[in-house]
Amino acid sequence: MAFSERVSRLKSSLIREILAAAQRPEVMSFAGGLPAEAMLPKVKWDAMPLAMGQYGMSEGEPALREALAAQARALGLACEASQVLVVSGSQQTLDLAAKLHIDVGTEIMLEAPTYLAALQIFQLFGADCITVPLQADGPDLKQLRARLEQHRPAFIYLIPTFQNPSAVRYSEAKRDAVAALLDEFGVTLIEDEPYRELTFDGGSATPIVSRLKKASWIYTGTVSKTLLPGLRVGYLIASPDLFPHLLRLKQSADLHTNRIGQWQALQWIGTEQYRSHLGELRDFYRDRRDRFQAALQTHFSDIADWNMPEGGLFFWLTLKQPLDTRTLLAAALAVDVAFMPGEPFFPEPDRHPGHLRLNFSHIDPSRLDEGLRRLAGVVRAALAAEAA
Amino acid sequence: MAFSERVSRLKSSLIREILAAAQRPEVMSFAGGLPAEAMLPKVKWDAMPLAMGQYGMSEGEPALREALAAQARALGLACEASQVLVVSGSQQTLDLAAKLHIDVGTEIMLEAPTYLAALQIFQLFGADCITVPLQADGPDLKQLRARLEQHRPAFIYLIPTFQNPSAVRYSEAKRDAVAALLDEFGVTLIEDEPYRELTFDGGSATPIVSRLKKASWIYTGTVSKTLLPGLRVGYLIASPDLFPHLLRLKQSADLHTNRIGQWQALQWIGTEQYRSHLGELRDFYRDRRDRFQAALQTHFSDIADWNMPEGGLFFWLTLKQPLDTRTLLAAALAVDVAFMPGEPFFPEPDRHPGHLRLNFSHIDPSRLDEGLRRLAGVVRAALAAEAA
Repeated sequence: MAFSERVSRLKSSLIREILAAAQRPEVMSFAGGLPAEAMLPKVKWDAMPLAMGQYGMSEGEPALREALAAQARALGLACEASQVLVVSGSQQTLDLAAKLHIDVGTEIMLEAPTYLAALQIFQLFGADCITVPLQADGPDLKQLRARLEQHRPAFIYLIPTFQNPSAVRYSEAKRDAVAALLDEFGVTLIEDEPYRELTFDGGSATPIVSRLKKASWIYTGTVSKTLLPGLRVGYLIASPDLFPHLLRLKQSADLHTNRIGQWQALQWIGTEQYRSHLGELRDFYRDRRDRFQAALQTHFSDIADWNMPEGGLFFWLTLKQPLDTRTLLAAALAVDVAFMPGEPFFPEPDRHPGHLRLNFSHIDPSRLDEGLRRLAGVVRAALAAEAA
Repeated sequence: MAFSERVSRLKSSLIREILAAAQRPEVMSFAGGLPAEAMLPKVKWDAMPLAMGQYGMSEGEPALREALAAQARALGLACEASQVLVVSGSQQTLDLAAKLHIDVGTEIMLEAPTYLAALQIFQLFGADCITVPLQADGPDLKQLRARLEQHRPAFIYLIPTFQNPSAVRYSEAKRDAVAALLDEFGVTLIEDEPYRELTFDGGSATPIVSRLKKASWIYTGTVSKTLLPGLRVGYLIASPDLFPHLLRLKQSADLHTNRIGQWQALQWIGTEQYRSHLGELRDFYRDRRDRFQAALQTHFSDIADWNMPEGGLFFWLTLKQPLDTRTLLAAALAVDVAFMPGEPFFPEPDRHPGHLRLNFSHIDPSRLDEGLRRLAGVVRAALAAEAA
């Protein structure tokens, strides 16, 4: 058997295994990042032209690229449709970016914590991960500068708006400061924004890439959190120096993104119908967040701290007495509760015990209180066992 | 700018550029491998459950995996649904296989010529390509044995049924002999079968993977050539030792294949409606092949040799007087004709001049004769210029 060296870094995905366990209907799952079934819009297919069944362009459908560029310009991002690449879900952006930038031992920079699946694919390609701690309003700027003075990362990967897993939203001041630092040190920015539209308390936050003056950048988004994840339609927008390489890597990865999903996405992007749907989504998820917050206060206020998320899909809990939350998984699943341990969201999991990521969007509200009660019970039992 | 070392091997795709040029409506294109628009089936979407819009499993839809396993078993391939991975077009199989097997300098074995996009992605990952020459009935077995005695390739990549670009169909005897050699030397087989169902003269050819007794294997297919390429739905079936790694690589590449296309594929695989559609496809393409053969005899019989393809989508011409066919492209496009030069289908293009790959499925028959007349004129002019 001749495997690549890379395969030795291919970890079993904790997410996949938890999601598999969480598929049992009796399980109350706080684990995934799934949209609520009730909020999947009833899309129509009857007007789709048959030509969408033919091979398409690697770049994506021209009309969709135009619509995505227009949407990005409305956010403050100076870009043309020629910089837009439609991808097979924004996860694919991470694969393409890894191929573009990472050799074994390449230094890259990440938030700590960061998106688990990004960490996994960057590590699969052999990246050496340098981290910057997150504070409530974005990265610790002193530490970011210090790291940039010591290292020359190929890129920095940031999720500035309702970060997964921490729910952190960067302040305007930190967005400006991060952009200035990346320009100063000439570091490429990969900005991942799946949750931008799931904002519950208003406010805006112009993308960091739009504040850059010199540094190269990739901005990536998706329709998975606001339309239908099953379409597998995401996009990236890249600075012109990076785009041609990303396009060729996309072509070699899967020729082009499915056109059926692209056509459906185009029926929504930029329309009044979509704005109206987004409004309903925000109302729905805001209500779920508020109920979750109330249930958390009942069951977790004595054992954990957290910030109320202003958007996105997750609460990020910090136990007052840290313990390795991975050790809680089996006990939780035994009482039909699934959650995401916090440790794997850090490149050095063992050094960051005591966090839990809890999804609030998917669980049926009627089971929410019971689910959190059971989960708190599992934590309490572990703390008691440790104290004993 | 910090790019990976891999990017230095990222070639501009000749295919993509030719296809872009060939999109001008006045161009008579023999370049791509596109199904005829007229033969795209009129699919229905109204019965699709809304749940197909939700996230799905990385493995693919369970019912589709069952249907694909049943179809493979009918071909003689002993396999279970648990060995089936639905991918985003069979191009993705090549990406996953490259990740699984190829480090910089890893030896792999290929037919010469071979599928251009496979060659490109294997080279992107840094493979050292060893080739085995194709004869009319499959690989040169003496040379295959000699190469296996000298090298330890991570895998061999073969397209035994209506090979792209050569249209070669391996004989039963060569299929057996190849399987025996791979078992003897313990070399993993990647068998790519996009054209299996496009057979015009009957006959069957059991996959080589089903003849293996010990070696590991990946078998890959697609609905792109027989249903709708725009769905981007392909699949791989792998030996149990490889499957778990491929699944994790799939998850890290794009989470899962779009469910919309998977649902549509499931409406067809294994049905009477599909069998009937395949019969119509074969009749349609057989007729196009026959007309193409007649037009070739008119315009090319004095300057090229070829074998009549028994299936697939291509004629593979060998010029009686070799010249670098890449140098003909500009002249051909100047008279509104596109074709694929043969050189890029070899790892060492400069050592294999004088082939043209001509697609017969896509061109309008009313323009066929004029297109081949112009192309032959371009070849003749180049030969005359060389003789002068």
